[in-house]
Amino acid sequence: MGEVNSVAKNPLKVAVAGLGTVGAETVKVLQKQANLMAARYGRTIKVVAVSARSRRDRGFAMEGIDWYDDPVQMAASADVDVVCELIGGSDGVAKAVVEAALAAGRHVVTANKALLAHHGVALAKTAESKGLTLGFEAAVAGGIPIIKALREGLAGNTISRVYGIMNGTCNYILTTMRESGRDFADVLADAQRLGYAEADPSFDVDGVDTAHKLSLLTSLAFGTQVNFDSIHIEGIRHVSATDIAFAEELGYRIKLLGIARKTASGGIEQRVHPCMVRKDEPVATVEGVFNSVVVEGDSVGRSVSIGRGAGAGPTASAVVADLIDIVASRQTPTFGIPADLLEPLPVWSMDQHVGAYYIRLMVEDHPGVFADIAAALRDSNVSMEAVIQRGRSPDEVVPVVLTLHETEEVRLNDALARISAIAAVVEPPRVIRIETL
Amino acid sequence: MGEVNSVAKNPLKVAVAGLGTVGAETVKVLQKQANLMAARYGRTIKVVAVSARSRRDRGFAMEGIDWYDDPVQMAASADVDVVCELIGGSDGVAKAVVEAALAAGRHVVTANKALLAHHGVALAKTAESKGLTLGFEAAVAGGIPIIKALREGLAGNTISRVYGIMNGTCNYILTTMRESGRDFADVLADAQRLGYAEADPSFDVDGVDTAHKLSLLTSLAFGTQVNFDSIHIEGIRHVSATDIAFAEELGYRIKLLGIARKTASGGIEQRVHPCMVRKDEPVATVEGVFNSVVVEGDSVGRSVSIGRGAGAGPTASAVVADLIDIVASRQTPTFGIPADLLEPLPVWSMDQHVGAYYIRLMVEDHPGVFADIAAALRDSNVSMEAVIQRGRSPDEVVPVVLTLHETEEVRLNDALARISAIAAVVEPPRVIRIETL
Repeated sequence: MGEVNSVAKNPLKVAVAGLGTVGAETVKVLQKQANLMAARYGRTIKVVAVSARSRRDRGFAMEGIDWYDDPVQMAASADVDVVCELIGGSDGVAKAVVEAALAAGRHVVTANKALLAHHGVALAKTAESKGLTLGFEAAVAGGIPIIKALREGLAGNTISRVYGIMNGTCNYILTTMRESGRDFADVLADAQRLGYAEADPSFDVDGVDTAHKLSLLTSLAFGTQVNFDSIHIEGIRHVSATDIAFAEELGYRIKLLGIARKTASGGIEQRVHPCMVRKDEPVATVEGVFNSVVVEGDSVGRSVSIGRGAGAGPTASAVVADLIDIVASRQTPTFGIPADLLEPLPVWSMDQHVGAYYIRLMVEDHPGVFADIAAALRDSNVSMEAVIQRGRSPDEVVPVVLTLHETEEVRLNDALARISAIAAVVEPPRVIRIETL
Repeated sequence: MGEVNSVAKNPLKVAVAGLGTVGAETVKVLQKQANLMAARYGRTIKVVAVSARSRRDRGFAMEGIDWYDDPVQMAASADVDVVCELIGGSDGVAKAVVEAALAAGRHVVTANKALLAHHGVALAKTAESKGLTLGFEAAVAGGIPIIKALREGLAGNTISRVYGIMNGTCNYILTTMRESGRDFADVLADAQRLGYAEADPSFDVDGVDTAHKLSLLTSLAFGTQVNFDSIHIEGIRHVSATDIAFAEELGYRIKLLGIARKTASGGIEQRVHPCMVRKDEPVATVEGVFNSVVVEGDSVGRSVSIGRGAGAGPTASAVVADLIDIVASRQTPTFGIPADLLEPLPVWSMDQHVGAYYIRLMVEDHPGVFADIAAALRDSNVSMEAVIQRGRSPDEVVPVVLTLHETEEVRLNDALARISAIAAVVEPPRVIRIETL
């Protein structure tokens, strides 16, 4: 690659805001791959400005890099072509950095799903009105180039459903619970000790992070405005070791999925919740911190991708891919279609959801209880597929598991209300949706 | 999408050469998705010329489409922006069509892996010298946007290995053999009846089709010139039901993989052969006509994609994706890096391959035979991991299975020569490489 350096005259100048593990790794990858980039694109990608909360050695050379204490000032005034926003958070500094960069006519690359879930369409409009790129490959499943796949590689398809495992923390916890038989709180504490879960794990385990990512995939898949607020969100806190064992017995695995699909009535449902999926489904086999995204299109059929979701390397790889699109002058509207043409998401409520269900009841085991449960289901016009009751323990509290055929969620809720009113049912029913993939 | 039609003035004009299932489906998808395209890109993609061997109804409207008896003449003279070459074959008409199109200044989109495996670099140089796109997403695993992923989505990575299941016919046959216990010839005959295998199946079952595809992935992954001739190719004809059963017992599945990887000495090995892979590996779970491609990069780690490999829908989806890149003015050198900068592939021979091996011998079961086999291995400096011998049948012919620790293939061949010379070994040894993924 001898002649390459002479070609690489006019580098793409990049500022990096935020030097956590992802930010630092991004700088390192760009420094390491400079020759490869120059060979491929005739230009290097050069980090010339950085900003972070504290100034300390992060394992890369600072020669030729200006330091800024204030990332917003850097975004507004550094002499750069692109600002990488790797700070995070839906508002505050991250938003100010992105807005300042776009206002100053600089492309933006971000890994910030929360920001785009809440302000994506407005930011995309600003970027597009100025002919700028707003890249976010790193915001969803860094190890899987799924944004590009949906926006470009599968763009000739009418998409019917997109779903996946998009939070490595939850998948690690559910995998470990299944393998060890231990309960949620116990495994979460371990995950926190190992650094797989944050001190405050709520964004992950309550499904919010998955919902942020899902809102972006929905927009790309269906050409609709990002609509985080309409997502039905449930996390994994209520998934118990008992439920995981019953799932196994029924031939299922429990996964936290984000799902967006066209409904029969022309709506688009967006939901994040634990799902029972058949063990032989590809997503059922995705374990630990790995992520998976599945796209169903009219031409392509089902396309499955599996890769690391988070971590410095995969996320930096995705940031660099977006920078490469910029250096190679490949420009695409943020959400595939110009932001002005994104359609409002059709209104939809979870009551309209149609699906199959797993219900676990804790009941006092005495005669007549099951007849009461069966009557409740009948009165709600809900049809039972299977029942599991392990052993007989007269007058003790035992689990009873029901699986229901496909029904509307509004009817399920009616049945649950009737069942909860039965005196022998001593805990609130636990419900996990069975997802047919 | 009311205002869209007025925007869609200047369509991208496309000629389609070859109207088999893929060609006809491509025209149908483009006609069906015209409004979606117009909304997304402000331009429609319009088929205005077609050519095929016989003129008959293929399920799409011919209004506004000119018919050509001669596809080369169409490529040279039709008033189009892009020629889709969907005829196939490494030379002959297909090559003439692509050359005529490039000579006339038209972009080319092709599904033709054989053509690119043999003439890819020369054609890429011609295209790039004229600023034209030569798109081939459809040439490898139509249902997986792997060309774009390697060329763009993972472009910031240094790739160490790329491998996969790239021939649906072979994977269907191996899957059915395992599920049914039947032998190769029997299952192949069924696959031919069902239309999953061609009347002359040799390109598929002898590994040539997989090798064509592998040669293209190698070039994209490593920035090297396409070099089909250096690929070590073995097909699946010699895989027996017996071997599949032993694989199962040893915890493996047998898959026909195409593998390109950097070797410890800085070479790049390219090989296509049946592999034993651990059952819990993602590629082991890819069954039937599905394809899978795995990329290992320094930042991203392992990225796995699974989707339909062939068939009209997935292939048309990939053709349309390439057309969309053209309509959206996203241009990339054919093999990711300008064709003039592709490096020659370092020389490498299969003798240098280092790996583990499964060997099945058919031996007359009498005392001392195993000692002779063990001595042959010792004399070749090859180290055994495990032995399976089922039952004892004095003086009958029985299978003996050995697995070997990692060794150089040249030593393995030495051991096989010694073993074959043992009188009690009554058939040529059957060898299947064990691939550590």
